[in-house]
Amino acid sequence: MKIKVIKIGGKLIEDDAVLQPLCDSLAALNEPFVLVHGGGVMGSRLAEQLGVEVKMHQGRRITDAATLNIAVMSYAGLANKKVVAGLQARGVNACGLSGCDMAVVKSTRRKVTDIDWGFVGDVDKADGKVLAMLLDAGITPVVSPITMSEQGELLNTNADSVASAVAMGLAEKFDVELVFTLDKAGVLLDVDDPESLIETITPELYAQLCAEEKIHSGMIPKIDNAYKTISSGVTSVRITSPNNLTGGTLVVK
Amino acid sequence: MKIKVIKIGGKLIEDDAVLQPLCDSLAALNEPFVLVHGGGVMGSRLAEQLGVEVKMHQGRRITDAATLNIAVMSYAGLANKKVVAGLQARGVNACGLSGCDMAVVKSTRRKVTDIDWGFVGDVDKADGKVLAMLLDAGITPVVSPITMSEQGELLNTNADSVASAVAMGLAEKFDVELVFTLDKAGVLLDVDDPESLIETITPELYAQLCAEEKIHSGMIPKIDNAYKTISSGVTSVRITSPNNLTGGTLVVK
Repeated sequence: MKIKVIKIGGKLIEDDAVLQPLCDSLAALNEPFVLVHGGGVMGSRLAEQLGVEVKMHQGRRITDAATLNIAVMSYAGLANKKVVAGLQARGVNACGLSGCDMAVVKSTRRKVTDIDWGFVGDVDKADGKVLAMLLDAGITPVVSPITMSEQGELLNTNADSVASAVAMGLAEKFDVELVFTLDKAGVLLDVDDPESLIETITPELYAQLCAEEKIHSGMIPKIDNAYKTISSGVTSVRITSPNNLTGGTLVVK
Repeated sequence: MKIKVIKIGGKLIEDDAVLQPLCDSLAALNEPFVLVHGGGVMGSRLAEQLGVEVKMHQGRRITDAATLNIAVMSYAGLANKKVVAGLQARGVNACGLSGCDMAVVKSTRRKVTDIDWGFVGDVDKADGKVLAMLLDAGITPVVSPITMSEQGELLNTNADSVASAVAMGLAEKFDVELVFTLDKAGVLLDVDDPESLIETITPELYAQLCAEEKIHSGMIPKIDNAYKTISSGVTSVRITSPNNLTGGTLVVK
């Protein structure tokens, strides 16, 4: 069975005028999928409203106890349930999950070195068997980036990493396409020209484009990460815009 | 198979010094259960912090759009995930659910009459089959009082009603004990004397106690509601304190 694991950014959920057409597109896929969402914008706005200072170190957020509660409220709560309700309204039997639910995504709290990142988790693995049980029952898991440590601590986690782990966990049983959405049409030779889309990236083409310095530096970690998940059993990785879930750039073996 | 459906109030979740021993008690039950929780205190506090006015009519809250978002964040988000993480830390494979997840609890938005209650739902039914699938897989559902209408709207709902619906939904397949927790030892002949606990209430004893005006007026709707769920297939209803989940008063046929 083919399964799509689709990662969407949190900012797509905040605004109903964006979320509702996205739910239309997801419902129109008419094939089994798992959705993984971020939620950064909602969290930052709630922190601002509550007067909780956003602490950063080298451009990355530090998650203290108050910030974790805000992340849980906005990502596992509001963002997750808004998406689930939007899908349910379109006949998709969605089930919202955070990593703690059935221990579906486990992570390890980031070690304190020169800096204490607080309640931030690095993903260990997603439980493909639990997700398969839901998918086999016709249920669409919608996964937030709140994960759980072995000790049962809630941790704030990078949603791209959660999506990769979910895809790898499902690859044991299914033919998995991992879909990353971004605000471009896909991987472009010229970032300002949507017509310059590369439809398919193979390892050979990727090596050639890198050698010719034709890949935008921001895209390199995404494609490297795509090949990492492919080497762990994921069939292909699609990089596309959220309004074209079956288009964009397909990264293959 | 015997299943307990346990309702706990939201104020038990707010304070870790209360929540952690409660999670110990739940883990020590060593039998399958479904937990249904409220979350009122968290919602009110968040509303206050955000400067959202709590609108009331005849002692009942009106749920406008801002208040609904707060309820979703605090009940479906923070309260639900705190309980799930607390249970997971004790080896209970909990799964947090709101009514929208797998459409597990459906409700109808309350009709506008002389007053518009806003996004408030009256429970229609809980899906016992979906809950049974989880229970059969060794999973402990933890259900928040955020439910969903047929149209996919999120609605704020009374947690006691959700617990009753869950118990009735499971009664088709299981031998269900519905447990309501409160800040008394159970049903007392003298509310100020815990020693006056009635251990078992039968319909005959209940009729007699009512005739003799020996039941506190606040307890009558709870016992009436208990008999309503029993007439819908639930085996028994326990009214007890959260630190004595197998004690208190047992209401039976």
